[in-house]
Amino acid sequence: MRVGILGAGQLGQMLALAGYPLGQRFTFLDTTGNPSADIGHTLVDKNNTRLAEFLSQVDVVSYEFEHLPVELVREIEQHKPVYPSSRALQVCQNRGLEKALFTQLAIPTPEYHLVNSLESLQQAVTDLTSKHQKPVVIKTVTEGYDGKGQAVLKNDSSQEVAAVWQRIGGRELIVEAFIDFVREVSIIAVRSQTGEVRFYPMAENHHVEGILRYSFAPLPNLNNDLQSQAEGYINALLEELDYVGVLTLELFQQTDGQLMANEMAPRVHNSGHWTQNGAATSQFENHLRAVTGLPLGSTAARSPTCMINIIAQNGDKQQLLQEDGLHLHLYGKEEREGRKLGHLNLVAETTAELITKVNRVALLLPEAPLPKLSFVSES
Amino acid sequence: MRVGILGAGQLGQMLALAGYPLGQRFTFLDTTGNPSADIGHTLVDKNNTRLAEFLSQVDVVSYEFEHLPVELVREIEQHKPVYPSSRALQVCQNRGLEKALFTQLAIPTPEYHLVNSLESLQQAVTDLTSKHQKPVVIKTVTEGYDGKGQAVLKNDSSQEVAAVWQRIGGRELIVEAFIDFVREVSIIAVRSQTGEVRFYPMAENHHVEGILRYSFAPLPNLNNDLQSQAEGYINALLEELDYVGVLTLELFQQTDGQLMANEMAPRVHNSGHWTQNGAATSQFENHLRAVTGLPLGSTAARSPTCMINIIAQNGDKQQLLQEDGLHLHLYGKEEREGRKLGHLNLVAETTAELITKVNRVALLLPEAPLPKLSFVSES
Repeated sequence: MRVGILGAGQLGQMLALAGYPLGQRFTFLDTTGNPSADIGHTLVDKNNTRLAEFLSQVDVVSYEFEHLPVELVREIEQHKPVYPSSRALQVCQNRGLEKALFTQLAIPTPEYHLVNSLESLQQAVTDLTSKHQKPVVIKTVTEGYDGKGQAVLKNDSSQEVAAVWQRIGGRELIVEAFIDFVREVSIIAVRSQTGEVRFYPMAENHHVEGILRYSFAPLPNLNNDLQSQAEGYINALLEELDYVGVLTLELFQQTDGQLMANEMAPRVHNSGHWTQNGAATSQFENHLRAVTGLPLGSTAARSPTCMINIIAQNGDKQQLLQEDGLHLHLYGKEEREGRKLGHLNLVAETTAELITKVNRVALLLPEAPLPKLSFVSES
Repeated sequence: MRVGILGAGQLGQMLALAGYPLGQRFTFLDTTGNPSADIGHTLVDKNNTRLAEFLSQVDVVSYEFEHLPVELVREIEQHKPVYPSSRALQVCQNRGLEKALFTQLAIPTPEYHLVNSLESLQQAVTDLTSKHQKPVVIKTVTEGYDGKGQAVLKNDSSQEVAAVWQRIGGRELIVEAFIDFVREVSIIAVRSQTGEVRFYPMAENHHVEGILRYSFAPLPNLNNDLQSQAEGYINALLEELDYVGVLTLELFQQTDGQLMANEMAPRVHNSGHWTQNGAATSQFENHLRAVTGLPLGSTAARSPTCMINIIAQNGDKQQLLQEDGLHLHLYGKEEREGRKLGHLNLVAETTAELITKVNRVALLLPEAPLPKLSFVSES
């Protein structure tokens, strides 16, 4: 089975590493000119001239990031199966369509306005700040990730609103009410071509400056109610989109234990990297099983696990690998400020042991010190 | 870190898959003209003209099979570090030297004679059969694997001895007394450049027609005495050879619980494939950690695990992957009679559950039906 991947970064690399043992081989189509997957066969195609060549080398197509032209994916669908479909891609790459789908499926999500001018932005900020007495989050409707293309405003000062429009506006924006949450969580699910669905246990995610730094899974103090709530939401999305592959849903857990959907990603996700060492089947393998028409693997957790992203500097392998239960996943990228260079998964017998390990390992990472962790008890 | 591997088969492929996440990249030197690793960069070099090119692309060298010219490895050692060393290779590729080392280190091994003529073969067979009242095993001193280059004689009939000499002789042979054993087991250990040693829990191995079919690990009814005995033996070998990398020692467990060394392999080994899904760190990753000067990872078992080899035909992925806890490892080879095409690892919560799974999955494999399993209780 020859799998084609749109994009050639670390997610593509990890898909290939998971697919080799299934007998799969990989061709990547890179349109950036900076592929880093460095496995299988990569076609660099900055001028969109090599699509036919790519299609001739693959049996099925998937993608590792959602900021792709929908028309490109629709064109590919004329020739080869693409999973997830162009419809799923279209919804997931547009925060407006995503929010509308959440609402249609009765999935709670923070109140929002879509705006496309300075005037409508001002109006939305004034409306939401006065109604909720909270800051608002402003994001571009398309593109934007790892905190890029985002702003937070504490009030509706016209000067600050204008500055935001200046910085990230000139295009459609979404303005969301800030909500009180006790933690950020995510659920990852996978759906096969025959409609079989499996859910991974939820993860608790810690961001610093908009970039994911830690994911704990199964999340500490996970109870069945919380997991069922999240499964219900993501299952509704999977069914509505007739989705095939791995889907990620990021959520806020509120003080009352209720979940609110933040956003989703139609792909393997950084908050699911823990599954490489902490789950029976990794998200990468399950995505490939789904995309290539195979039965899904168990999503059960094998151990309490924490994923820590490695940013900017690779760190000292000698030191890191002295920690038992530490699994390194370097992407082979050059060091650069703010760049995700890899991650590590820590596994332990118990959550208490895991937290001790995490706090010890965090000190070994050379980038800005990570915050000391504390966990929320479910009430 | 650029790692060079002599040989480009499935073991090399699995080394590369384990090394990518450590930030390592691989170049293979294939002298057969039939490389199958299909990852990283392979130099096909049937006429021994590309060694300099290979050496220019690597920082450290290891190998995936031991039937290599020792002079080649000695030459490489002049230019780049090679692990395990040419001395370890020399001993492990020659059953005579191997036996002498076992004896030197007081590691029990079946009584043997080295012979290099029909006359001395006849004499050895007569001596051992009359002394032990058991059949003898005759093997070539070098080469030979998966039961190739071997013969078993039940008595010293001169006609049969002559037939054996005709078939596998004309070169040095080793004649060994057949011993009573309750099971075949193996231990895998890894030693780092700083002399750190880690031992995997022992595996129980089931062969059919000389080819490994099942490995169970940790072996059912493993007790501390048995594990310590094996660790003592392999540790003596590691220290004596100043060994760096993974070493495998195959042993017979006798009725009295004592172990006898059969043979060893200076590399990752088929009986250690279970570690990919059943141990904290796989044998492949630990071999690479050792070879590249990194600290070793935990060798603890995570679950009762059984490895089953996939021979001749790949089997039906759809059926196989429906079994939860089944991990497929296909090598991407064409189907061919007697050829190892891949293996699968089954993990379970308990040994009882594992055996049920194994007996179910064995029925799904298309090659000659596997024997139903029964286990020996330690007395």
